[in-house]
Amino acid sequence: MTYCVGMMLDRGLVFMSDTRTNAGLDNISTFRKMTIWEEPGERLITLMAAGNLATTQAVVSLLDERSKSPADRQPSLMAAPSMFQAAGMVADTLREVIANHAETGQRADSTFNATLILGGQIKGGPPRLFLIYPEGNFIEAGTDTPFFQIGETKYGRPILVRAYDPEMRFEDAMKLLLVSFDSTLKANLTVGAPFDFHLYETDSFKTGPRGRIELEDPYFRSISQGWGDALKEALDSLPAFSFDG
Amino acid sequence: MTYCVGMMLDRGLVFMSDTRTNAGLDNISTFRKMTIWEEPGERLITLMAAGNLATTQAVVSLLDERSKSPADRQPSLMAAPSMFQAAGMVADTLREVIANHAETGQRADSTFNATLILGGQIKGGPPRLFLIYPEGNFIEAGTDTPFFQIGETKYGRPILVRAYDPEMRFEDAMKLLLVSFDSTLKANLTVGAPFDFHLYETDSFKTGPRGRIELEDPYFRSISQGWGDALKEALDSLPAFSFDG
Repeated sequence: MTYCVGMMLDRGLVFMSDTRTNAGLDNISTFRKMTIWEEPGERLITLMAAGNLATTQAVVSLLDERSKSPADRQPSLMAAPSMFQAAGMVADTLREVIANHAETGQRADSTFNATLILGGQIKGGPPRLFLIYPEGNFIEAGTDTPFFQIGETKYGRPILVRAYDPEMRFEDAMKLLLVSFDSTLKANLTVGAPFDFHLYETDSFKTGPRGRIELEDPYFRSISQGWGDALKEALDSLPAFSFDG
Repeated sequence: MTYCVGMMLDRGLVFMSDTRTNAGLDNISTFRKMTIWEEPGERLITLMAAGNLATTQAVVSLLDERSKSPADRQPSLMAAPSMFQAAGMVADTLREVIANHAETGQRADSTFNATLILGGQIKGGPPRLFLIYPEGNFIEAGTDTPFFQIGETKYGRPILVRAYDPEMRFEDAMKLLLVSFDSTLKANLTVGAPFDFHLYETDSFKTGPRGRIELEDPYFRSISQGWGDALKEALDSLPAFSFDG
């Protein structure tokens, strides 16, 4: 499994992904699941992937090859005139890769599946965020549903639902996401640190603050330890149940 | 789906179950998923069920019939000499019901599956808590894993992991469980109010405080509304992320 979150804020887009991949509990590895394509001043596209690693790596490699030599192969992500069309290209590539693998006669083609989060901005349009399904269709985030999760989404969802605020600063968004990732990490072995992040500032058309949070990162440790205490205090602050009604 | 939690505390056992059943999103109903067998001064057994409703109702009816006329049918839950043997009887009954349905030639026998939480105390032994699998085997809660969840367990797990304390009062356990149920409710339509609860006090050998919490219950509403604010305050109390490292 995997855990990735893409979030729309008033000031930009926030991406965070874990790095755990597994083929059984006895076979875990670390892989980057976040890819960034950039043409400074023109476009910035971030992709995160959950699902079959062979599928998602093939999708990224194909998109990458086509971007680097746009003369050879069309269409290219770096030539897409809008985020909508970029999402369409990525979705088509995903469907193509899954179909290629499924054609070998393998029955359980669901094991080749992957789900993607694509976000970014192309000059002339606003920042947009998409969730792309293995079937090759996709949906877009809006003010009603301003964030997407893929992979092991359930543990970390309640805190996002409760604390998300479109006006939040990037620093607070990072804090919120690290709490959401920490809750997931604590409950599920298929999600693992380090966590990659990228924060895209609206209309900057370039890579924003990005990096990797290790398990031993002092800030992450303070969040992880502090959150347990803060939750207990939050519980304490609520009125006690009374059996007298 | 369903959400049930059974929890071992120093002072006794706590049970809470939702009441939502569904056969598709367009066909939801309310059913009690908690059953209590009592012989005051002698034994108290509580069962909660998640999974196929026909299966879990059949299990309860069979156990019930056998308990009421122990002369006719053996073995009876009311005659079990220990909680371990009671768990074995329930597990055998569950396996029997699933096997009966599967024998009809129906392929997808997993759809008949159910998972149970059984807890209680029989004179001569301590309170014990079991998780019973559809295969008819079971595990017991201990100090390392002092609570079991069945059904839609993921959303409500982080708060339990963080805030559970074996020394907590029943009133605080109720508050904790209602927060866990509220988090699940907010994220998943297959879990629904009202919630049934039962608190068994160690060595009382009788039904303890029990009841049903409706969605409109003023206390539940105060918890549900207060929890969002309390979470935000908890987040605020943590140090902010800094991009300067």
